[in-house]
Amino acid sequence: MIIMKTDATQEEIENVINEIKRCRLRADVSKGEFRSVIGIIGDESQIDFAHLATLPGVKEAIGIETPYKIITREYGKFSEGLEEQRIIRVGNVEIGGNQPIFIAGPCAVESREQLFRIADGVKRAGAHILRGGIFKPRSSVHSFQGLGAWSQEEAEEALDWLREAGKKFELPVITEARGETQVDLVAQYADIIQIGARNMYDQDLLTKVGRKGKPVLLKRHFGAGIEEFLSFAEYIAAEGNRDIILCERGIVPVGKGKSYTRYTLDLAAIPAIQKETYLPVLVDPSHATGRRDLIFSMSCAAIAAGACGLMIEVHYDPAEALVDGQQMITPDELKDVIHACQRIQKLIMPEK
Amino acid sequence: MIIMKTDATQEEIENVINEIKRCRLRADVSKGEFRSVIGIIGDESQIDFAHLATLPGVKEAIGIETPYKIITREYGKFSEGLEEQRIIRVGNVEIGGNQPIFIAGPCAVESREQLFRIADGVKRAGAHILRGGIFKPRSSVHSFQGLGAWSQEEAEEALDWLREAGKKFELPVITEARGETQVDLVAQYADIIQIGARNMYDQDLLTKVGRKGKPVLLKRHFGAGIEEFLSFAEYIAAEGNRDIILCERGIVPVGKGKSYTRYTLDLAAIPAIQKETYLPVLVDPSHATGRRDLIFSMSCAAIAAGACGLMIEVHYDPAEALVDGQQMITPDELKDVIHACQRIQKLIMPEK
Amino acid sequence: MIIMKTDATQEEIENVINEIKRCRLRADVSKGEFRSVIGIIGDESQIDFAHLATLPGVKEAIGIETPYKIITREYGKFSEGLEEQRIIRVGNVEIGGNQPIFIAGPCAVESREQLFRIADGVKRAGAHILRGGIFKPRSSVHSFQGLGAWSQEEAEEALDWLREAGKKFELPVITEARGETQVDLVAQYADIIQIGARNMYDQDLLTKVGRKGKPVLLKRHFGAGIEEFLSFAEYIAAEGNRDIILCERGIVPVGKGKSYTRYTLDLAAIPAIQKETYLPVLVDPSHATGRRDLIFSMSCAAIAAGACGLMIEVHYDPAEALVDGQQMITPDELKDVIHACQRIQKLIMPEK
Amino acid sequence: MIIMKTDATQEEIENVINEIKRCRLRADVSKGEFRSVIGIIGDESQIDFAHLATLPGVKEAIGIETPYKIITREYGKFSEGLEEQRIIRVGNVEIGGNQPIFIAGPCAVESREQLFRIADGVKRAGAHILRGGIFKPRSSVHSFQGLGAWSQEEAEEALDWLREAGKKFELPVITEARGETQVDLVAQYADIIQIGARNMYDQDLLTKVGRKGKPVLLKRHFGAGIEEFLSFAEYIAAEGNRDIILCERGIVPVGKGKSYTRYTLDLAAIPAIQKETYLPVLVDPSHATGRRDLIFSMSCAAIAAGACGLMIEVHYDPAEALVDGQQMITPDELKDVIHACQRIQKLIMPEK
Repeated sequence: MIIMKTDATQEEIENVINEIKRCRLRADVSKGEFRSVIGIIGDESQIDFAHLATLPGVKEAIGIETPYKIITREYGKFSEGLEEQRIIRVGNVEIGGNQPIFIAGPCAVESREQLFRIADGVKRAGAHILRGGIFKPRSSVHSFQGLGAWSQEEAEEALDWLREAGKKFELPVITEARGETQVDLVAQYADIIQIGARNMYDQDLLTKVGRKGKPVLLKRHFGAGIEEFLSFAEYIAAEGNRDIILCERGIVPVGKGKSYTRYTLDLAAIPAIQKETYLPVLVDPSHATGRRDLIFSMSCAAIAAGACGLMIEVHYDPAEALVDGQQMITPDELKDVIHACQRIQKLIMPEK
Repeated sequence: MIIMKTDATQEEIENVINEIKRCRLRADVSKGEFRSVIGIIGDESQIDFAHLATLPGVKEAIGIETPYKIITREYGKFSEGLEEQRIIRVGNVEIGGNQPIFIAGPCAVESREQLFRIADGVKRAGAHILRGGIFKPRSSVHSFQGLGAWSQEEAEEALDWLREAGKKFELPVITEARGETQVDLVAQYADIIQIGARNMYDQDLLTKVGRKGKPVLLKRHFGAGIEEFLSFAEYIAAEGNRDIILCERGIVPVGKGKSYTRYTLDLAAIPAIQKETYLPVLVDPSHATGRRDLIFSMSCAAIAAGACGLMIEVHYDPAEALVDGQQMITPDELKDVIHACQRIQKLIMPEK
Repeated sequence: MIIMKTDATQEEIENVINEIKRCRLRADVSKGEFRSVIGIIGDESQIDFAHLATLPGVKEAIGIETPYKIITREYGKFSEGLEEQRIIRVGNVEIGGNQPIFIAGPCAVESREQLFRIADGVKRAGAHILRGGIFKPRSSVHSFQGLGAWSQEEAEEALDWLREAGKKFELPVITEARGETQVDLVAQYADIIQIGARNMYDQDLLTKVGRKGKPVLLKRHFGAGIEEFLSFAEYIAAEGNRDIILCERGIVPVGKGKSYTRYTLDLAAIPAIQKETYLPVLVDPSHATGRRDLIFSMSCAAIAAGACGLMIEVHYDPAEALVDGQQMITPDELKDVIHACQRIQKLIMPEK
Repeated sequence: MIIMKTDATQEEIENVINEIKRCRLRADVSKGEFRSVIGIIGDESQIDFAHLATLPGVKEAIGIETPYKIITREYGKFSEGLEEQRIIRVGNVEIGGNQPIFIAGPCAVESREQLFRIADGVKRAGAHILRGGIFKPRSSVHSFQGLGAWSQEEAEEALDWLREAGKKFELPVITEARGETQVDLVAQYADIIQIGARNMYDQDLLTKVGRKGKPVLLKRHFGAGIEEFLSFAEYIAAEGNRDIILCERGIVPVGKGKSYTRYTLDLAAIPAIQKETYLPVLVDPSHATGRRDLIFSMSCAAIAAGACGLMIEVHYDPAEALVDGQQMITPDELKDVIHACQRIQKLIMPEK
């Protein structure tokens, strides 16, 4: 981190950036009211900090050897004067603000009619953002892969339904880009680009999505520790995109015998992550538990633990869903969840 | 499970019990208002159900091949007409009732003064039960093992302080019996006998403690799945003791790199366990997180998830504690936790 | 699986394939000496097996609802008459044959000189295939990402060195394609395309790589069970590519406290996988243990467990390596490993 | 660790021991040829090392803050001049010596006839020690708990069969003490006392067993890291008993979906543990895999990884066994395992 003097000129700043580039590293520049701060992206051992410190206009050059730094509270404070959590705005929705945000919708978009009917339901229930999977990551090539798998035309058609439903019900929309080749297309239609848990480690995908200038929701991989989760979020931030929403969705179960939940929802990760970074944290209780009858409890628990919102799978007839029916709730059940969560969040707010 | 006819005589019941004993199995007898139900404890493959069904007074003989059965909701309903969760009464305290119960106190009892000062603090903060470890399970023989380790006299002295503090501040007391040889002694002084996570698999200890006729708090082992947890609770129930409080305290973390929490608190286990059994579930956020700054959040989350109460380590000066200082909170902080939790529980109650 | 009659005509086969395509599924056709077998790729619930069975030329139509099927021993036996493990030929090297195969080389290619010096060393030590990472998957954006990260030109230059070194020392070469956009390039230069553990779940990458017609080495993700590992290998096989080498490289460690090894090497996975599939299994002890002093032992153990070969990181001066120095061995140490492994394999062979 | 001067008198040594006891710690005294070394057992922060260093006869007083120390290679070297692995002698059998040792027998002793027939089988197959469970740890109270569960008389009768079979077939015998109350009894009959994986954390049991003066085989708990495993072995060593055999038997599986093995056998733990301690390490492939068809491979792998021997469940008719039939092998299969393992061990020996 290079802290420039308050009177450093633009030329001096450029000079430092060039020195960083000369060492084949990248610079992350924040111009504050009083002074500029330049973060180094890449392997800092390639640069000579003693030399940097002697450059004109440089006040201080500090090496930070951690796997993530741009997304830390310290860096946010220093570079942007960010005291609290970052608020990410999508349309009229504020993620990370005073209200818990509910992202809801079907696991997979199955038809225009199915999508619109669910969108209507979740809107009435009080949801803020509409979700709907078009490119579905599946453990088996022999499972339904989402409408996006059939053809480019059908993918676009489904994406278009999503955008249309979002407009009609005044809900920003989110959908997943599973592979690099889907990023451009998804970025055209979605308000938030989702990166699924299975792809959390895909740094090329993160880099590509980081460059689209749209908010990104990054799910934690089920085998990833918190340090890894934040380190991979840093790949997106390194492209200049700070609009990153982190989403906890359960980690691999341990122990032998029958599983009572699909994954282990790690709710302590919420406050633990919030101590580290200014990025908002959401929770997906649907994939974590895989059980419709646990959604209410775990939604309340997630909000009580400090989550900024939830991502919940909803279907008017869960039994009929092509994917994940056993973990979906109905719009009416969603309404109860939202109502309880909003009241819990009000309770814990002043004490946060 | 042997369901007797409504007009079965005592003699007929005895006859069935004798048949069960003849096969070297044990019988768990529940006499309802209308009829008696006899549960079989042990390996049912040793008995001939067809033959049982022909005995006089027997209405039905049903084999149940699950690792636990006495503690299931079904068995509770059938044998005792228990519709809801079981309420366990300890003095004036009701565990599993309408109020969340807070067990608080030092990790380890260090001195009479320390204990009384903390007992005073937790009472004022609103706690219901006083905890204090005298026989401490420790990962290293080179760590402080609790006052109980010095000598029988000192163990009794410390246990006596605990009982005395409980009386003075009107708080039932709980402490751990770590090994079989400590059970009788602990049962003399404590209102609830605690079995620690490390000893969950110790079936001889569970059997012994099950025979003492006192409520038992059983912690889930950090490597145990829910099925195993319930199967070991069944060892206590098999001795005729249904006053079992289950306690989730975190499971082994997965993933490499730095740990942000000591264990992974598995809050989805709360509702998942409650669907299976009538036994109340508590949560210990102190050992689970190992972090003082996460106690508030995880306490709120646990109650929101449906826990019947919490077990929290408290010290007037955490930095001074001989064991686990980094995870203890002060009595003032406990007060905030209790206040928030009580309000959250009121919110979710009607919807449970 | 559609088993055709021995006298089924080409037209009848085409007719079945068209019926499968009509249901938006794909067909995998194997023409045996006596009869043809058609496998269905995709969600079989979309097709009517009763109807398929009535089509002319069809002997039997059997639904198989498992997450993987093309790579199973049963399917191999039925469709190709494959009795044993599949042998994958790369140049003169046979993977899955009578000899254990050793893939060795630097973790990351750092320079032409470094690569050639190591290639020379591993050739002399008895290795069969040369490895060298050019696109390095890294947990932190702030770590060295491999020469491929600088620019397209430098990526090609490094790939060219690899190909050149392979020719000079008569070693087929393997390198990783980390993202979809690298597949075409890597396929031009490498004899085997490696998919790293972090990308095992990247089904778009697997699909793309499956279409290149080159052998693929797929590493098991550190959070994946065996069923998932095989299910994702099936994505490659579904593109008509059976030349898949599976590689066990350790799963996430469990338990708290200091880690003595980087991951947990799951050697029982070798025979367990071999019972399921005809694909050869390799082991990477370098990434699994992260410890140079355990490579010899774990290499011997892997071969004794039935692995078809090993992938080992080698450097003439491990301390100097830019990546993973603590887990690299020298060419001389590799020689000892190869010698011991070859003798162990001879011992266990007849009993396999 | 207190290193005495070479000319320290017995009185000076006593003096140091008394000082240690005064601080309520225990002393572990090793008298070497040239000088005595005194290890401190317990919480060293309770003692003043500066003061200890000033006592007459003391050469050096060094604090060691690790969870285990008596069992480390360093301590062995210093206190006993132990350069290599410790050899534990049981009758004519040397565990940790030049030959791999095979412990074999039924999971549970079911009858005198069954035991003798299997003992005969394993002796002919080349096994060195006879195993047979009499007190069986079981996950469910509704499973067969071993003959020891019926009554004290039957427990003694079964233990007597074991001793008798050992004598007849010239095989030292090992059986498990599951709870504290069984230790005295088991110690009367068995040559080696086994502590099962579920009881690894039971420090009271370890302490009690450590005092019996008989070799102890300690199994690693399935949720325990290596550091914990060694820390609990230290509880036995702290009682003056260095005849501890460590046994790896698999850790909890991670990942969702179908399990292909019961636990994950952590073979890298063998060399990792051997770098830390002089205690011999055995492997139990039967419980680890739970699969008869993997025993041969995993036995070979364990020996190749450096294990000093194996513990294998054997039955003349696995299908008939009351417990664990699916993981037992026949005496003939054992013979093949022993033969292969002995040859592998010869191969790797000089290179160890």
